[in-house]
Parts: sequence; C-alpha cells; structure tokens
Amino acid sequence: MIQSPGRCKLILGSRIIPEKVTETARIEAFSDGVFAIAVTLLVLDLKVPRDLENDVTLGAALLQEWPAYLAFVASFVTILIMWINHHRMFTLIGRADDTLMFANGMLLFGVTALPFPTSLVADYLGHPGQFLAAAVYNGTFILISVGFNFVWFTARSRLKSTADPAAVQAITDSYRLGPVMYLVTFAIGFANVAVSLLLVLGMALYWALPKRAKRTRA
Amino acid sequence: MIQSPGRCKLILGSRIIPEKVTETARIEAFSDGVFAIAVTLLVLDLKVPRDLENDVTLGAALLQEWPAYLAFVASFVTILIMWINHHRMFTLIGRADDTLMFANGMLLFGVTALPFPTSLVADYLGHPGQFLAAAVYNGTFILISVGFNFVWFTARSRLKSTADPAAVQAITDSYRLGPVMYLVTFAIGFANVAVSLLLVLGMALYWALPKRAKRTRA
Amino acid sequence: MIQSPGRCKLILGSRIIPEKVTETARIEAFSDGVFAIAVTLLVLDLKVPRDLENDVTLGAALLQEWPAYLAFVASFVTILIMWINHHRMFTLIGRADDTLMFANGMLLFGVTALPFPTSLVADYLGHPGQFLAAAVYNGTFILISVGFNFVWFTARSRLKSTADPAAVQAITDSYRLGPVMYLVTFAIGFANVAVSLLLVLGMALYWALPKRAKRTRA
Amino acid sequence: MIQSPGRCKLILGSRIIPEKVTETARIEAFSDGVFAIAVTLLVLDLKVPRDLENDVTLGAALLQEWPAYLAFVASFVTILIMWINHHRMFTLIGRADDTLMFANGMLLFGVTALPFPTSLVADYLGHPGQFLAAAVYNGTFILISVGFNFVWFTARSRLKSTADPAAVQAITDSYRLGPVMYLVTFAIGFANVAVSLLLVLGMALYWALPKRAKRTRA
Repeated sequence: MIQSPGRCKLILGSRIIPEKVTETARIEAFSDGVFAIAVTLLVLDLKVPRDLENDVTLGAALLQEWPAYLAFVASFVTILIMWINHHRMFTLIGRADDTLMFANGMLLFGVTALPFPTSLVADYLGHPGQFLAAAVYNGTFILISVGFNFVWFTARSRLKSTADPAAVQAITDSYRLGPVMYLVTFAIGFANVAVSLLLVLGMALYWALPKRAKRTRA
Repeated sequence: MIQSPGRCKLILGSRIIPEKVTETARIEAFSDGVFAIAVTLLVLDLKVPRDLENDVTLGAALLQEWPAYLAFVASFVTILIMWINHHRMFTLIGRADDTLMFANGMLLFGVTALPFPTSLVADYLGHPGQFLAAAVYNGTFILISVGFNFVWFTARSRLKSTADPAAVQAITDSYRLGPVMYLVTFAIGFANVAVSLLLVLGMALYWALPKRAKRTRA
Repeated sequence: MIQSPGRCKLILGSRIIPEKVTETARIEAFSDGVFAIAVTLLVLDLKVPRDLENDVTLGAALLQEWPAYLAFVASFVTILIMWINHHRMFTLIGRADDTLMFANGMLLFGVTALPFPTSLVADYLGHPGQFLAAAVYNGTFILISVGFNFVWFTARSRLKSTADPAAVQAITDSYRLGPVMYLVTFAIGFANVAVSLLLVLGMALYWALPKRAKRTRA
Repeated sequence: MIQSPGRCKLILGSRIIPEKVTETARIEAFSDGVFAIAVTLLVLDLKVPRDLENDVTLGAALLQEWPAYLAFVASFVTILIMWINHHRMFTLIGRADDTLMFANGMLLFGVTALPFPTSLVADYLGHPGQFLAAAVYNGTFILISVGFNFVWFTARSRLKSTADPAAVQAITDSYRLGPVMYLVTFAIGFANVAVSLLLVLGMALYWALPKRAKRTRA
C-alpha cells in the first residue's frame, strides 16, 4: 500500500537498494486483510435469539446475551488497537525478509484464531467451564503479545535509517509490558471471568494512550 | 492505496513533510477492507428455506422472507453510500494521527456490527419484539452517523491545503443532518418497522444525490 | 492500488488534472475486496455431511452433494472471469465520479448477493422448486451483466485518452452479449437446471477466450 | 500494491512499455485478498462445544476436538507459506496477461476451496470415512501445488529482466517437488490420517526453510 522509499528509488532508476527489500508493502496489505477480516468475523458470534419461549421477551433474551456483547467489544477494540500498533511498527521497518514474514505469520495466527476463543468465552461465561474458556481467551492474547515482541525483535535490525530512536524505544518498552499484562488478566480470569474481560478492554484503551502522551511531549 | 502527496514528497527526496503524517493510505485500505467485508457478510443473513412442509412451495417460502431481503438491501445500500462518503472525506484529509484513527475505529465498530441488527430486524419484523429489533437497527445507524461526525470533526484540522472549502462545507452540512435523520427513522420504527426500513433505504439514496447536484452546479 | 496517471501528475507537481478524478484506485481496491470476499464465501455453501445413517458411506453422502459442487464451480469461475473483466475495464477508465461509483455499486450488489442463489440452486436441484431456484440464480447473472453494461456505458465518457479504441470496442461488443446469453441460460433453466449451470460455467470460460484471440491478432 | 516498474515508466512519461503489462499489482492485491480471507475463514471450522452432557467437562469436550485444531493449524501454516511463496514468485514476474491470470485463478480455486476439506478431515478423523476425507484434503493440496507449477511455468516467459537466475531456478526446483510430496501425504493418508496431517504441517515448514538457507549462502 505504502511504498517503501527503497522501492521508489528503484522506480526512479537509481537501483541503489536491492529489489528484495521492498516487500513490506505486500506484508502490510496481507496483514491489513487478516486484521480486517478477523475483526469483521467477530460479528458472527452475535446470535439472534430464536424460538423464544412464550414468557420470554426479545429484550430479555438479548440482555441474557451480555457476555457475547462484552466479549465482542473487548475483542473488537483489542484487534483495532493491535492493528494500529502493527501499522505504527511497520512504518519504521525498512525491509522484510523471510524471518520477519514468519514472525508476522505467528502474530497473524493468533489474530486469525481469536473469533474462536471469543465465541467460547461468550458462550460459557457464567456456566461450568467458564474459567477454562477465559484461560483460552486470555491465553490467545498472551500468544499474540509474544508474537508482537517476536516481530519487533526481528524487525529491530531492519529498521529504516530515518526511524526515530525515541519512537523505537517507546515501542520496545510498550511491547515488553504486553505478555506481562495479559498474564495478569489470565490469572484474574480464574477468579472472575467478566472482570478479566473488562481488563482486556481497558488495557486495549490504555495501550493506545501512553503513545499519544509521548507523541505530544516530543 | 492512494498515496498522499506528503508521502510522495518524501519519496522524491524533499522530506519537507514528516513521515508520520502519511498514514491515511493504510487507514483507507483497512477501512475499505472492513466496509467490503461487512457488506459481503450481509448475504449470510439470507437463509435458504429448508425442510418445507408438504403444502408450502419454495416460492411461498421465499416470499415469506421479504423482511430479510428488505433489510439486506437497506443495509447494503447504506454501507455502500457510507463507503463512498468515507472515501470522499479521506480525499480531503491530509494527515492521520492517533485521534483520527480512534474516531475512525468507532465508525468502523458500527459498520462491523451492522450484520447483527440487520439479521435481528429481518427475523423479528412482524413478530413480537419487532419494535425493539428496529430500535437496535436504527440505533446502530445513529451510532455510525455520530461516528462520521466525530471523524470529520477530528479531520477538519488535518485537511489538505488544497481541499476545496465548498466541498468541506458541503460535507459538514451533510453529516450534521445524519444523526437527526436516523433519530427520525428510530422514532418511526416504533410505529411501523417496514416503513422505517424503507426510509433508511431512501435516505441512503438521498444522501448521495445532494452532493451530485452541488457538484454539477460548481 | 494502481495509481492513475492523473494522480501521479499531481504528485509530480504539474497539477494539470484536478484531484477528484483520481478515485479509480480506491474504487478498484474496494471492488477487489468485494469480489475476493464473495468468491471465498462461496465455500461456506459446501456442507460437510453429518449424522450419516448406518448404511450410507461418506463417499455416497459426498456424491449426493454434486449439485453443490457444480454450483460452487460455476459461481467461482464466473466471479473470477467477472473480476478479470472488471479489472480490464478499469485499466481503460481515466476518472471516477459519483455516477460511475453508483453504477459500480449496482454491479457489486449482484456479486455480493451471489452466494445466496448459489446456495439456493445447490439445495433445490433435483427437488421441487428447482426451476424457481435456477431462475433466481440465472436472474442474478442477468442483473450483474446489466450492471456491467451500465458501468461501461457510464465509463465511456471517462476513458483515458490513451485507451485503445479497439479494446474499447471489444469490451462494448462483448458486454452487449452478456444479458442476452444469461437470458438464454435463464430460459434453459426451466427445462433442465443442471444444463443451465453447465452453460453458465461454459459461458464464463467462453467470455475469456474471445478477448485473448483478439489480443493475439492485434 | 507494489507498482511494477513498467507502470512507473508509463507514469513518468516514457511510454516504452505498453499499458497492459502493468496488471500484476491488481492480481497480487486480489490474490492477497483471497489468501487472507481463506486463511481467516478456517476459524469458522472451530466449533464451540454446546449442550454438553452432565458428565462431560468443557475441557474434555475441547480435547475431543483435537483433529479440528490439528487440521486448522496445518491448513493455516500451509496457506501462509503458500502466500509467502506466491508473493516471492510475483516479485520476479514483470507482466501479467490473460494466461497468467487464469493459471493464477486455478491456484486460487484450490486455496478458496480449502476450508471445506479442512472441515471434512476435522469432522471425520477417527470415524468411518476418515480415509476418504484425508484423500480429499491431500488431493486439494496436490491440485494447488500443480496450480503453482502452472503459474510458474506460465510466468517464466514474463519475468522481469532484473530477475535473479538463481532465485528463478530455486523456485523451479522447489515447486517441482510440491506435487510429488503431496502425493506422498496422499498415500500415507490411507494408512494414518493424523500422520498425514502432521506431514502436511511439517512440509509447509520445510518448504520455507530451504529458501532461507539458499539466500544465506548467496
């Protein structure tokens, strides 16, 4: 989508930078696609109540589905923030090679799988098995946040020469917190599933705010 | 997708505009993906009639599904017009930052969720609970139209220097009407659900026409 | 995706062509998304046989599903060819305005809806109601082929100055045939549904071949 | 997404290369979309256990679903590697014409259909019919790997003049192995379905490694 400067130098004829470093455009496009589809498939977990018994109104039936709405919102906001972070990270990456593509693939694996644990926790919250469901849900976020760190670790030797060192350090600090914080929601999920979902939602919002604060300062 | 001029200046070496303002290309790509997927997932609400009883023909069974077709068409046309408006709006926006990305994320939340209320109103039109279903459906459009105003409010200080003031004012005027008009369909939905759906469909078409009229005049 | 030359002239500073003519890139991207999603959603109509009775093998159960496979292949190949034609058409279009976007939206409406009639004909082939199912299926293709003619009619006054007149005429001739040919499959569908599906598949392949022949000659 | 140099020459006014050779950008975008959607739709095969009997825990019910997880992972990793290979292949291709688009369409047909055999093998592993399910699953990979060879065979006369002969030869050697290796998993699938799935998964990883080794050497 966004052409890397390397590519453009090639286009303009200088050929200084070899062609194979120009792959981030298509990685970003593919990743965008996966993020966009995963976030949109979440809606399939919102089920229209059917075959209501006589004494149940549609309103009551919909209200009973609140775990599904909470899980939908938490997963939607988290994927959206992750996409923004993914985007911000790739604006700094100058070239892609196979290692980076595989690290990114691991990250996308978690994102792709997310509708399943979202559906699991939406169905089992408040029923036997809810703690296992929450563990799978929060475990998926641990996996994704480890994936982000792996991509970033791989990317650090492939940054653009124009990448701002402060922005690089901010990402390093921010991502390092990820697995730790999802371990906390993972643990809390064994005490109260709804609270762990609210934390996931809150963390997604928190994730975004520090960056903005820093940017304002800079 | 569409490169912002800022980006290109960077590519051509002038580096006058800082790199982080160039993000609209990938926001547009991600938004396009979400719009395209949401509009295509609507088809999953069209159910093939199964296990027909002996005295019911397929034709009769399909005709009975008219609320699903009406809701499908109303949602399809509305998302399409919204995509065109989103597109038109972003042609004027010169740079994206975090605030704009979150405002856009709120807008996309409504678009992503839309297949659920569409399915809800398709299933309950003519049955008990239909007024609640219509309220959820029209309420989603209120949310999205507020989201559009939020994006546009955020974007107004980030417009391209070449943005035509008349086009800017036309969008401001047009978007301001959105929440008001969907409040009207929301209210009408408590009297007659089918009429409120027809109004949603009609409004989507109306939304498009004024712009064309103005462009012709200009 | 593909930048229009107009856009690039702007980027390179000449500003000869006004900014609003540059919209084909994002229309193409959105259309690509809808085509890609619609073609991929078709697979959801292929159902894994479940709860087999004791004397039915999986092989027999799968073979019984042949109408679903035939409909899947016919719809897949047709959407693919339509995408190629859409692509070829837009390489000639120099600028997009609202009329073109709405004409394109009508075309996309048919493409988006296609998984439903595909599922309908897959389920009812060989059962009562099959002729109606085939009529809906073939009728959708009539709608799409009329949509293509509408887009092309709208586009003809917006072609690039470099558009090859022979290529333009070839598209005009080719598209004009579309509605006629799908009217034929529509009629045949009332006699034999399977034959009309095979014709749809054959026509999609035929649609591609003449162009290649002409290009070879040129 | 990635502009072909040919396109850019056109943009910059030289017009040496005719316009119709510039189509790889949109083929890649469309293919990316299909790969991204197919890989994301796989998650719909992961079913949340419902209506558990009293003596079955959620954990036990989830563990019983291991064939679905194995099939999901094997298909996910394979599509991801295929996408990387598709991407790598197209970086070498200078121009697209109709033949290449159809060859690519055949490849995409297999990719699009993959969620169905994945679901089939996930449901039938360990039940009567599992060998047929595995044959369909592995057969789809044979089809796709033949498709890759067809695309590559078609593309070889359309390579960029700057394409590295060693990279070209590496792809030729690597792709030639594909159908052979999937024939092996196809045969093994008649003895042990789980082992053939593990082989598919292992092969996808192997597919990636040799290339990296060679690149390091070069």
